[in-house]
Amino acid sequence: MREVAVIGIGQSIFGKLSHMSAIDVGRDAVVAALKDAGVNPKDIQVAFASRMYDCWVTAQSILKEVGITGIEMVNVENACAGGATAFRGVWKDIADGRYDMGIAVGVEMITNSPLAGKLISPTKDDLDGELGLTMPGIFALLARRQMEMYGSTIEDFALISVKNHHHGCMNPFAQYKKEFTVEDVVNSHMICDPITLLQCCPMTDGAAAAVLCSLEKARQYTSRPIKVIGSALLSGEYMYRMSDITLSPLGSKTANIAYKMAGVGPEDIDLVELHDAFANEEILRYEELGLCKQGDGVRLVRDKETWAGGRIPVNPSGGLLSLGHPLSASGVRNIAEIVLHLRGQAGERQTPNAKIGLAHMLGGTLSGVEAGACSVHILAR
Amino acid sequence: MREVAVIGIGQSIFGKLSHMSAIDVGRDAVVAALKDAGVNPKDIQVAFASRMYDCWVTAQSILKEVGITGIEMVNVENACAGGATAFRGVWKDIADGRYDMGIAVGVEMITNSPLAGKLISPTKDDLDGELGLTMPGIFALLARRQMEMYGSTIEDFALISVKNHHHGCMNPFAQYKKEFTVEDVVNSHMICDPITLLQCCPMTDGAAAAVLCSLEKARQYTSRPIKVIGSALLSGEYMYRMSDITLSPLGSKTANIAYKMAGVGPEDIDLVELHDAFANEEILRYEELGLCKQGDGVRLVRDKETWAGGRIPVNPSGGLLSLGHPLSASGVRNIAEIVLHLRGQAGERQTPNAKIGLAHMLGGTLSGVEAGACSVHILAR
Repeated sequence: MREVAVIGIGQSIFGKLSHMSAIDVGRDAVVAALKDAGVNPKDIQVAFASRMYDCWVTAQSILKEVGITGIEMVNVENACAGGATAFRGVWKDIADGRYDMGIAVGVEMITNSPLAGKLISPTKDDLDGELGLTMPGIFALLARRQMEMYGSTIEDFALISVKNHHHGCMNPFAQYKKEFTVEDVVNSHMICDPITLLQCCPMTDGAAAAVLCSLEKARQYTSRPIKVIGSALLSGEYMYRMSDITLSPLGSKTANIAYKMAGVGPEDIDLVELHDAFANEEILRYEELGLCKQGDGVRLVRDKETWAGGRIPVNPSGGLLSLGHPLSASGVRNIAEIVLHLRGQAGERQTPNAKIGLAHMLGGTLSGVEAGACSVHILAR
Repeated sequence: MREVAVIGIGQSIFGKLSHMSAIDVGRDAVVAALKDAGVNPKDIQVAFASRMYDCWVTAQSILKEVGITGIEMVNVENACAGGATAFRGVWKDIADGRYDMGIAVGVEMITNSPLAGKLISPTKDDLDGELGLTMPGIFALLARRQMEMYGSTIEDFALISVKNHHHGCMNPFAQYKKEFTVEDVVNSHMICDPITLLQCCPMTDGAAAAVLCSLEKARQYTSRPIKVIGSALLSGEYMYRMSDITLSPLGSKTANIAYKMAGVGPEDIDLVELHDAFANEEILRYEELGLCKQGDGVRLVRDKETWAGGRIPVNPSGGLLSLGHPLSASGVRNIAEIVLHLRGQAGERQTPNAKIGLAHMLGGTLSGVEAGACSVHILAR
């Protein structure tokens, strides 16, 4: 298996972009990534795109706009892990020597989609969903269990939102650049007790793209290629284990595969981007990724370890909570954030001397017990 | 790159299945393929699924029903080539040594979908579509050009439908098992001159699945593994070249990659399954796949060369015209048809002594100039 590097990253603005088409938004990200990489569109040999809604030859429709044609293109869907699945598709093809250079694109147009309601309403063929269990409902159940089991408080969850919005204020691409206090978060509109509005990620349109190539070839384009040293994608036991819904064996298993491939452990990671669709979720992911032991996650945010400038910044981009969450785009966008830090280009939110970063995504349907996907990518400079 | 074999195939019934869910229909195909392969669900290490409409963690939702969980799963979309893209995804992972055994599933529920109208109506972000060019309209333009350029007649196109419906009568899975005469086809309801109803593939629900594994491992399960000797997937210049819309450089280019990989030429192929969404389309595909020279396609059907029992049977399954076309399922289903013939299990429609077969798919949006995908797989016993 060959070593693979990311040599270009790009994203569109994130927000309510209903005045634009998916092609417009996707093209913005692709053009930015190609420019960042300094490669000619004709050098791209394979492309994977991800889009959850209206995924009709998305890769082809976007890429023809920049003259990328006559190559293998695949469109993928894997719920919130779709963008990461596209990234992994390109990574595999290059690692396995099938192609030398490729592009991964994630795009989602949610705010003006007639299907947007599906995000929080029951999906078809989903028993729990049909019985009324919505996404905020699931995470409220988790939050209650976290409070019961580990003594977490609503203020702890609010602190995650305060942190990520603080980070988002340093990110020019963030949908919501505003500082909030714990009181602001706790007192915002109640969605599903104990989850308030400011503990939920917003509805967001946007796109992100990444150019990958063999490490050998990367040196022709850049003096600082960012290596993909671990990649894992798994589906299976998902959101909650019935005996303890705060445990997600899928997350731990996926992370362990990536750690093993990379030859590193959680203690070697300098920064993390993870799936924080709801504030309390971030704490669960700390634990699954091995950043702390089970039940100890709240300590990391209370002690400022996961804040920008802390021991191991988590979601320095602002995360889904502040930056926004255009589903299939997020998995490419959060890898791009890691790349920025490893290059030392993250501006005022830069993680000092970052050498190794981890990007995590997780998604699935409402019942979710097994119908989900989790991805972990580990990158190194 | 390792040799890969198909060791199991299965499909659901094809037809109007609105009394079933996509999960039910997909499960029927998966169970049939696993049984045919004689493998335990726990032996499956990777899964790719394809579904164009409502592709929400389709692989996960179907496969958990048979106990397949805790593995890498990817959902793909590539218009009508989606099923073949899923098949290629599994093939790549095994060929590259990433996994030893996997399953590809294609499923589509069209007849009861609120989105079904999209099949023949304008899609978003598609200029020609927005201006009113529908799928039958595109193929009617092609048909007129074929008549103008090569002297093809409506009766020639009708003969393709007669042939494929004749083949479908020998296939227990065909949606429409009925013999038609050229007169029946020509005199059926006019859709878009010269295309009549019986020259169009029907709306169909259904699923198909295939189990692949390394050739080395295959011998543990079967004495007649069917080898995948060529696989190609390309996007780019698509439905028509503006200087001559009967030419599709994409089709020829894709076929040539597959022929080269397989080390065979069109003259070595014993049977073909190809994308016959409209009767006149089949003739164009003969030419792109190199079964005859440009403009000579009608001769093959007139001279009965592509009929069951002829020199090179095309669409012995009944094709999309008679068997039905559940979009993402068709690309897996038509590979399964090739496997049946190479095993000598195709019953009364068996191609005598078939050694090498080719499965082709093609799909894309209405404007289609570049927003499409073409796949070619070559299999050998």
